[in-house]
Amino acid sequence: MKRQFVSEIKAGEPVDDFFVLAEKTLLQKKDGNNYLNIVLSDRSGWIKGVVWDNVEEIASLVKPGDVVQVKATAGEYRGALQLVVKGMTTVTVESGDFSDFIPATARDIDLMFERVVALSDSLRPSYLKALFQVFWKDDGFVEKFKAAPAAKKMHHAYLGGLLEHTLSMAVLADKIAGHYSGIDRDLLVAGALLHDIGKIGEFRWDIHIDYSDEGRLLNHITIGVRMMEEKIQTIQNFPEEKALLLKHMVVSHHGSREFGSPEPPKTIEAVLLNYIDEIDAKVQGIREFMGKENPDEPWTSYHRLLERHFYRGKA
Amino acid sequence: MKRQFVSEIKAGEPVDDFFVLAEKTLLQKKDGNNYLNIVLSDRSGWIKGVVWDNVEEIASLVKPGDVVQVKATAGEYRGALQLVVKGMTTVTVESGDFSDFIPATARDIDLMFERVVALSDSLRPSYLKALFQVFWKDDGFVEKFKAAPAAKKMHHAYLGGLLEHTLSMAVLADKIAGHYSGIDRDLLVAGALLHDIGKIGEFRWDIHIDYSDEGRLLNHITIGVRMMEEKIQTIQNFPEEKALLLKHMVVSHHGSREFGSPEPPKTIEAVLLNYIDEIDAKVQGIREFMGKENPDEPWTSYHRLLERHFYRGKA
Amino acid sequence: MKRQFVSEIKAGEPVDDFFVLAEKTLLQKKDGNNYLNIVLSDRSGWIKGVVWDNVEEIASLVKPGDVVQVKATAGEYRGALQLVVKGMTTVTVESGDFSDFIPATARDIDLMFERVVALSDSLRPSYLKALFQVFWKDDGFVEKFKAAPAAKKMHHAYLGGLLEHTLSMAVLADKIAGHYSGIDRDLLVAGALLHDIGKIGEFRWDIHIDYSDEGRLLNHITIGVRMMEEKIQTIQNFPEEKALLLKHMVVSHHGSREFGSPEPPKTIEAVLLNYIDEIDAKVQGIREFMGKENPDEPWTSYHRLLERHFYRGKA
Amino acid sequence: MKRQFVSEIKAGEPVDDFFVLAEKTLLQKKDGNNYLNIVLSDRSGWIKGVVWDNVEEIASLVKPGDVVQVKATAGEYRGALQLVVKGMTTVTVESGDFSDFIPATARDIDLMFERVVALSDSLRPSYLKALFQVFWKDDGFVEKFKAAPAAKKMHHAYLGGLLEHTLSMAVLADKIAGHYSGIDRDLLVAGALLHDIGKIGEFRWDIHIDYSDEGRLLNHITIGVRMMEEKIQTIQNFPEEKALLLKHMVVSHHGSREFGSPEPPKTIEAVLLNYIDEIDAKVQGIREFMGKENPDEPWTSYHRLLERHFYRGKA
Amino acid sequence: MKRQFVSEIKAGEPVDDFFVLAEKTLLQKKDGNNYLNIVLSDRSGWIKGVVWDNVEEIASLVKPGDVVQVKATAGEYRGALQLVVKGMTTVTVESGDFSDFIPATARDIDLMFERVVALSDSLRPSYLKALFQVFWKDDGFVEKFKAAPAAKKMHHAYLGGLLEHTLSMAVLADKIAGHYSGIDRDLLVAGALLHDIGKIGEFRWDIHIDYSDEGRLLNHITIGVRMMEEKIQTIQNFPEEKALLLKHMVVSHHGSREFGSPEPPKTIEAVLLNYIDEIDAKVQGIREFMGKENPDEPWTSYHRLLERHFYRGKA
Amino acid sequence: MKRQFVSEIKAGEPVDDFFVLAEKTLLQKKDGNNYLNIVLSDRSGWIKGVVWDNVEEIASLVKPGDVVQVKATAGEYRGALQLVVKGMTTVTVESGDFSDFIPATARDIDLMFERVVALSDSLRPSYLKALFQVFWKDDGFVEKFKAAPAAKKMHHAYLGGLLEHTLSMAVLADKIAGHYSGIDRDLLVAGALLHDIGKIGEFRWDIHIDYSDEGRLLNHITIGVRMMEEKIQTIQNFPEEKALLLKHMVVSHHGSREFGSPEPPKTIEAVLLNYIDEIDAKVQGIREFMGKENPDEPWTSYHRLLERHFYRGKA
Repeated sequence: MKRQFVSEIKAGEPVDDFFVLAEKTLLQKKDGNNYLNIVLSDRSGWIKGVVWDNVEEIASLVKPGDVVQVKATAGEYRGALQLVVKGMTTVTVESGDFSDFIPATARDIDLMFERVVALSDSLRPSYLKALFQVFWKDDGFVEKFKAAPAAKKMHHAYLGGLLEHTLSMAVLADKIAGHYSGIDRDLLVAGALLHDIGKIGEFRWDIHIDYSDEGRLLNHITIGVRMMEEKIQTIQNFPEEKALLLKHMVVSHHGSREFGSPEPPKTIEAVLLNYIDEIDAKVQGIREFMGKENPDEPWTSYHRLLERHFYRGKA
Repeated sequence: MKRQFVSEIKAGEPVDDFFVLAEKTLLQKKDGNNYLNIVLSDRSGWIKGVVWDNVEEIASLVKPGDVVQVKATAGEYRGALQLVVKGMTTVTVESGDFSDFIPATARDIDLMFERVVALSDSLRPSYLKALFQVFWKDDGFVEKFKAAPAAKKMHHAYLGGLLEHTLSMAVLADKIAGHYSGIDRDLLVAGALLHDIGKIGEFRWDIHIDYSDEGRLLNHITIGVRMMEEKIQTIQNFPEEKALLLKHMVVSHHGSREFGSPEPPKTIEAVLLNYIDEIDAKVQGIREFMGKENPDEPWTSYHRLLERHFYRGKA
Repeated sequence: MKRQFVSEIKAGEPVDDFFVLAEKTLLQKKDGNNYLNIVLSDRSGWIKGVVWDNVEEIASLVKPGDVVQVKATAGEYRGALQLVVKGMTTVTVESGDFSDFIPATARDIDLMFERVVALSDSLRPSYLKALFQVFWKDDGFVEKFKAAPAAKKMHHAYLGGLLEHTLSMAVLADKIAGHYSGIDRDLLVAGALLHDIGKIGEFRWDIHIDYSDEGRLLNHITIGVRMMEEKIQTIQNFPEEKALLLKHMVVSHHGSREFGSPEPPKTIEAVLLNYIDEIDAKVQGIREFMGKENPDEPWTSYHRLLERHFYRGKA
Repeated sequence: MKRQFVSEIKAGEPVDDFFVLAEKTLLQKKDGNNYLNIVLSDRSGWIKGVVWDNVEEIASLVKPGDVVQVKATAGEYRGALQLVVKGMTTVTVESGDFSDFIPATARDIDLMFERVVALSDSLRPSYLKALFQVFWKDDGFVEKFKAAPAAKKMHHAYLGGLLEHTLSMAVLADKIAGHYSGIDRDLLVAGALLHDIGKIGEFRWDIHIDYSDEGRLLNHITIGVRMMEEKIQTIQNFPEEKALLLKHMVVSHHGSREFGSPEPPKTIEAVLLNYIDEIDAKVQGIREFMGKENPDEPWTSYHRLLERHFYRGKA
Repeated sequence: MKRQFVSEIKAGEPVDDFFVLAEKTLLQKKDGNNYLNIVLSDRSGWIKGVVWDNVEEIASLVKPGDVVQVKATAGEYRGALQLVVKGMTTVTVESGDFSDFIPATARDIDLMFERVVALSDSLRPSYLKALFQVFWKDDGFVEKFKAAPAAKKMHHAYLGGLLEHTLSMAVLADKIAGHYSGIDRDLLVAGALLHDIGKIGEFRWDIHIDYSDEGRLLNHITIGVRMMEEKIQTIQNFPEEKALLLKHMVVSHHGSREFGSPEPPKTIEAVLLNYIDEIDAKVQGIREFMGKENPDEPWTSYHRLLERHFYRGKA
Repeated sequence: MKRQFVSEIKAGEPVDDFFVLAEKTLLQKKDGNNYLNIVLSDRSGWIKGVVWDNVEEIASLVKPGDVVQVKATAGEYRGALQLVVKGMTTVTVESGDFSDFIPATARDIDLMFERVVALSDSLRPSYLKALFQVFWKDDGFVEKFKAAPAAKKMHHAYLGGLLEHTLSMAVLADKIAGHYSGIDRDLLVAGALLHDIGKIGEFRWDIHIDYSDEGRLLNHITIGVRMMEEKIQTIQNFPEEKALLLKHMVVSHHGSREFGSPEPPKTIEAVLLNYIDEIDAKVQGIREFMGKENPDEPWTSYHRLLERHFYRGKA
């Protein structure tokens, strides 16, 4: 549907396409006339805009959160691009497909999902294989699992991010499990596949990515354990000890109470899962951070959360 | 069944009664003969004992964790009481009632339970009243809820402790709710009644109080949320927002991630519940600590966890 | 004296009333002429203003911290109200009553004070009753005690806030004391009444609320203990142990060194006082925070100090 | 009075002297007869003893905390010295001088006090000089100030330790004040002299060094501020700002809330005082620790509080 | 070369001198024409400027980091000074002397260096004296040692700051060493002289002060130890134990791992060095902070890092 | 040389072999005669012993730290094995091989070293390959690198532990490097091989494993950087940036200042190295801990440092 993405708009070009109206502020000029400052977004980023004409009419037709069709010209103001908007109306996205409007993984979702399913088929215990078959048959689950982000910011904060993060962790888990003797590879890989499923309830991503009420009040760990229990109950003779150990992977995967796990990892596999999660989140987060920085500078700007500059090397 | 409790044994008296064999150690005298050091316990405390005769035979008949019938004489050794044991055999507690062998509340369990039920009947929303009726009709739940301890040590670490702690908190919640305008008293009292129900799965108290496997791997918060969800699902039209808020009371009642809550309290009622829990646990814990100390001293000994001496005042 | 409060001014209305001149900045227009940006405040909040004419004369007549009489018209600029000021002169508040200019409790101060006195009369030990009588006879103390805020921000940060906080805590203390056996109710209630009296020295509230030099250098705990000692010395036969315990209530009421108490609570009553203080401060602080937020949103904005959004429920 | 100190007793020698009875335990031999294990102390250390004869009579005549006259022979048991006690009776120390029984400074108390007084005389502002004169005229204060320890353990934990620590800090303060321009040397030295005076109320040292009730409940910072206020009030025209700054030195000398100061240092002089206190306490504490260790080892044993071994160098 | 420093420019004056171009931003006016916002700096501070004419040409000739010759007039805009720039060209500083452009110590560098050398000559062990002679003969080292700052901000963050900080600490070390018996004064003073030499590699100060790549990746402690090792290796028979102890002074001078020392101080001298470093850094940092504040106010503004206001006293 | 190891001695057997004399204590029996309590150790563990005859002679011939030849009989005392020693003399271990006396890796050292060399040969940049060739040609280095432990306790605390830990990490690094695009695999693997080389100076393992003076005073990170610099200097044209990045791997491998790294990881490779180190140390540490516990229990005892019980599963 969309053809012009925010990141590709150039000064001087006409714009006629769909965006999310992220912000709308009614202001007054010195001459007493109103004008409208707006922010438009799509999956590629943000752009500011201004409406000088038909202000009241346009203002009454749109509200933040709407998908709007915008006619405008791209100019520059104070060194940044700005759209001078001629017309804007709310539209209905009949396809129900908002993927153009929120950031999404650059990778092929169906391909990633196939690999996840293949990994779950490689698990040897029949009760584990059965558990994943129950998950994959739940269409509502699969649809959300393929769409959900893994975070609101920091790392994998885009549609498909949960799937991308899950697949990367499960593959890494498979590699590391073989490095040490005595590791239950099937438990570790299954834990990697399931550890963050609660995020499909923790987030909502209708128009932009944010926490759901349930996410803020219960946390994805609590939600994830409940989802596992519902599925496990449908499987006959799922060994009780194995069910406990698998739920423990989810409960403990943040590593310590300080980071939100009610219990710390108490099996070798849970200890490993926590490290694999940290590696995948940190490496991907730092790479996303580096990717936004000036490629000509050997050092990134200061990363506030990690409290340091990162070095990318000299060209 | 029992008549002689550890705390009442006096030097010089004969002993013939039932105890839990807590520890058993086979040692050698200088002359090369074996003897047996043991520790016996019941709900009132611990006592040491020694077996000089028929050592091998007795040692082969009993193992730690057994309920044993003991024939002995009470003497003194190095300033403390010690039983010189003549005979000891494992017995079966046919009644299945081990209440003589683990510490238990000094209060009337049925009376406390009645008051808890009455508080649940005082809740005005029909869906809350219905929820508790489902709980009280679950005999397996009620039996454990009346028997469970609230902790392994520190406070209410005895049978019936969970009920005692729950009742005390619910009554206090009722008082404090009325102090501030705008508090949802029913949500607060219901939260107080339910906040620790997961402890019936977190602990086991067959012969002594300890964590269960499930308790160590999942934590009572995770277990409690699941128990609530199972019951809520059985009630028609339980308002979804209210279910979330009630589960949030359980999820957040430890106050912060550092203390094991995956999310901190995000409603006024959840904030209050956390304080009421802290008050009841701390006050009862300090009183139990004071109760074990020399009543003639104005100061207690050093409390390692709270890092201070407490002052009880001069007689 | 005042009739128009900042929170009630509407666009288009004339304004002629008294305000505190909170800020004054002299700026230059592009044509080289000066103009004046100002901020005016009263107990209900803040408003910005601009002076285009007689700038130098007006600027020379007023300085920040003055109470000024303002003649102006209310307009809108960039979506917010702004006063276009025609005239402004410093006035003397002959009444010495600045209560119109700083935020104040919405409750009846004399009524609250009566209830505080009544609570102090309910104390059974004669030495405690006597102590409060000495305080209440000290007019300078009573005047400040009725006027002082309980904080500069966060909770009860308004005139009368100390009294409101003190009364609320003492009533709550009375309720909780009865919940547990073995609590010295009189010590607890007396401690609640006295715990923050040092704040009358820690703050100044001439025109706005701020820390005094003494407050910044000594802290209200140190000041409060000294105030108690001065009064206790005037009472014959005040039991020495009771004086220590009462002063300990003040010394320890922040709960730990980390929060400013030189010693942590070492009696059950001091432990309770700390919790009651935390409850009253936190509940009131969260309610004030919620009160400033958009009532149509179920979630508040992010609370930086408590590091979370709060949920007020759906309408 | 005493001639034989614990640290000088040698195996084989007869002992006939006065000690503090620190501990007394009545035990039973295998043959059913009683014997008495005791611990005796004086200012130089501890020694164990045993009473085989006249056990019941001796046990009835003495209690822990008494000064006792002991007749015994020194032997060795399990590699350590042990007194075999023949007779022991409680005596009254008519002199009231217990300095033989608790550890005391090795330095000359009167000489140290003279130097402290001289430093106080060197202060230039008349109100400061006057303040110290009031302190030195208070005989009760001076007696305690010369006798008090500076701590219960860690550093200067002996009689005269407060004076030794105070003098060392004041001299050091004098040196450092001259190193930086713009330091109020008189405020810094006066602060050093007064910073710990509250310790004369925080500790008691009748027979051994321990915290007093007041010390545990109020802390020496609170006590010290009160002592200063009482004296300052007796001086006419003591400048109010200077009184605040001097009290601030006491209030803030632990450096942060975490270490017990209600406010952190907010003047250059208070910042310096905190460092001087840390240096003197740490250097002396480490030297005392080193002094107790085997002089042939280059490394000390592990210092639990400071979490490291210290290196003294190779001989 | 320079005659007009930023801190001395007055409104209305013509400006014709050299500055560092710190920032350059190309902006558009409403009429579509470009203008240039710039920031110029020299050792005395910062000033903003604007270029209205010949914008494109000037913009193409200069880049941030250049030393530029500027012709301008000083005006005022929004209450602050602003240069209206007529011409600006990059120049080459042939002298290679950038001392006019970065902040520098107000003290005489050669005099300070002489005193440092004199202190090193006062060391008694011949191997220490020899070590410093090797350092002082290394011209590259001496040049950098005299020029380097001690920090990027906070304290001594100016050219010559390292030398000033080093001298101050060594003199203070000399004073404090004499205060306690048993201190190795030579080790302490040598440690003070060498503790921060790694900063000549940690920082670069070509045009402004910043971390070098080596500084960010290795830290001045690691760099300093290497520099010492290179010099020590050139001295015959430098006692191995003494070399270890001297390097330990550098390794441990931040006092704990938390502050960047791989090992905490384990000798009395290292403990003292850490305190002396803290005193000198903190006192100087607070004085610099006070120096930038309004001298008429008794309190400074809030110091974010030290989390307090500082009190300078009333005039 | 040795045939009987401590872990294999059985009650009733004669013992005639070599051990390290770990402790020696001279004690007195009640009859006044001396006896000797000793502790003997070898690589498999500890055993206590007692000497009843020829006590003075034997005591004079041996001192702790000696390798001694012992003739004894194994008995039981208080439930534990105890040697009754008939003769004991110090011997010289002419081979200089103490491997029988300290715990050592169960794996083949030469095989592990071969694999390490092979990994270093697989590095593509010639300067890295050259660097390792210089290390491998340094026989003194190789000998220590093959012998050193990786820790004093916790994990790999045995001879060959450094090599085992290094090889495991390098192999794991190789696997993980391939999982993410954009990782410099050669830098990561080289960092893994070199990260702990400083431990050959940090520890000594003559008779038992302990920290060296250099280790306690300088830390293995400081030592390791110096060792790298010495070798790098011998290689012509080693790229300066690469040398910095390689040294940064060592400097930052503990992840944060709190854990002893002067700088945190600032490249993706350094971030990964820190996680790989944590994984290998933690997994191996937990496995060693599990290995010492009762294999019939599903839960281990409490791990004090990691503050939890670990679950090994039911048999």
